[in-house]
Amino acid sequence: MEEHLRPEGRLFLIPTPLGDEGAEGCLTAGGIDTVRGLRHFAVENARTARRFLSTLGMPCAIDELQMGILDKRTAREGVQPFVAWLAAGLDVGVLSEAGAPGIADPGALLVRVAHEHGVEVVPLVGPSSLLMAMMASGLNGQSFAFVGYLPIEKRARRARIRELETKAIREGSAQAFIETPYRNDQLLHELLATLRAETRLCLGCGLQHQGGWVRTLPVAEWFAANVTLGKVPTLYIIGV
Amino acid sequence: MEEHLRPEGRLFLIPTPLGDEGAEGCLTAGGIDTVRGLRHFAVENARTARRFLSTLGMPCAIDELQMGILDKRTAREGVQPFVAWLAAGLDVGVLSEAGAPGIADPGALLVRVAHEHGVEVVPLVGPSSLLMAMMASGLNGQSFAFVGYLPIEKRARRARIRELETKAIREGSAQAFIETPYRNDQLLHELLATLRAETRLCLGCGLQHQGGWVRTLPVAEWFAANVTLGKVPTLYIIGV
Repeated sequence: MEEHLRPEGRLFLIPTPLGDEGAEGCLTAGGIDTVRGLRHFAVENARTARRFLSTLGMPCAIDELQMGILDKRTAREGVQPFVAWLAAGLDVGVLSEAGAPGIADPGALLVRVAHEHGVEVVPLVGPSSLLMAMMASGLNGQSFAFVGYLPIEKRARRARIRELETKAIREGSAQAFIETPYRNDQLLHELLATLRAETRLCLGCGLQHQGGWVRTLPVAEWFAANVTLGKVPTLYIIGV
Repeated sequence: MEEHLRPEGRLFLIPTPLGDEGAEGCLTAGGIDTVRGLRHFAVENARTARRFLSTLGMPCAIDELQMGILDKRTAREGVQPFVAWLAAGLDVGVLSEAGAPGIADPGALLVRVAHEHGVEVVPLVGPSSLLMAMMASGLNGQSFAFVGYLPIEKRARRARIRELETKAIREGSAQAFIETPYRNDQLLHELLATLRAETRLCLGCGLQHQGGWVRTLPVAEWFAANVTLGKVPTLYIIGV
């Protein structure tokens, strides 16, 4: 790319811990060094971000860091302070609550505006529950979709589950989605009641949490296993 | 999950460098420790795997490691030696040529068989060109698909590009795909000739390589930018 498109500030996308792994289990040594060099951040939650940056060993007081909120309510005008930092030549780090910014998490709007301004966008290596569950699912990593949340209303939810199963069978693909943790067991019940017995279902439960696991079984075997997920963050994947 | 389902050996999925980042820029400190403890590996390419494991500082001679090939030609019976290791209580690591095993890379078949045998499957944190490009694209990380390779034949390829664009517009989703590097510029030409001027196209070119970049622009601006990709591994994403 032509260098003149780029102002000096770069936008760093920083994955944060999914569970108990801490900064050292979340970022590479190089990634940790990069974040230590930043002083300006766009964060989903200031308290979580400060805690994470503390464990990371920033070479300055956490109070000296400049931080603005970037969450799902942030509109286009809300990202202007971050754009102003970038335009002034300052590097900016984006931190979401857990996992990769912009993937099932806020961040994409700022990245979009950054590209419109020709800002260099740099993703760091780190955890993503979607990617880790897909890797460990044994389902089709050549063709898969992440579809976010399913509808909450019961009839619409069942219809959507059937639609995703039909798509998985027709395409041979994997269809991944998430749920608010307190609805996990309700969703699992709906999945087992709606999917065909031979359809494979992967559950990635508490990835990077102590005792977390990823397991793929035909629906009939999940029935027999009688699993309870509780309120642990879980990724769901339907496959064939 | 019930412990009795699991034999003692665990299957570790180990992401490998996409570019010039080396082991330290690829895995977390904890991930490096985990891999150093393994002696048995299923690898896509033995030479690349040995080089990677050497840079990682294994506490034994590389020649002492047990290695078997797991590539796209490996059939179901070909994974039996790895299953035998797992059944004997040995931990096994899976290494693909670059990036995350099982995502646009071999590995899924062994993981599938591992789940059938109740083996614990553990994904490590590491780089994935798909995930990093999606994070840095500013496109819809709440709804996206990875569809692998497009057809090679010109008419089928154009039809597929139009189909992905229609899907992206209808769903508001992002549609990601890859290409064999030597066909990069041919595919980029086809994309610019086929997509609508206002459709947004993200190119993630040489992620983790020196000089790599990710950039999202409307098709009309890519036309004007007159970019050449060369033979650098590139991830393509169509969005709105």
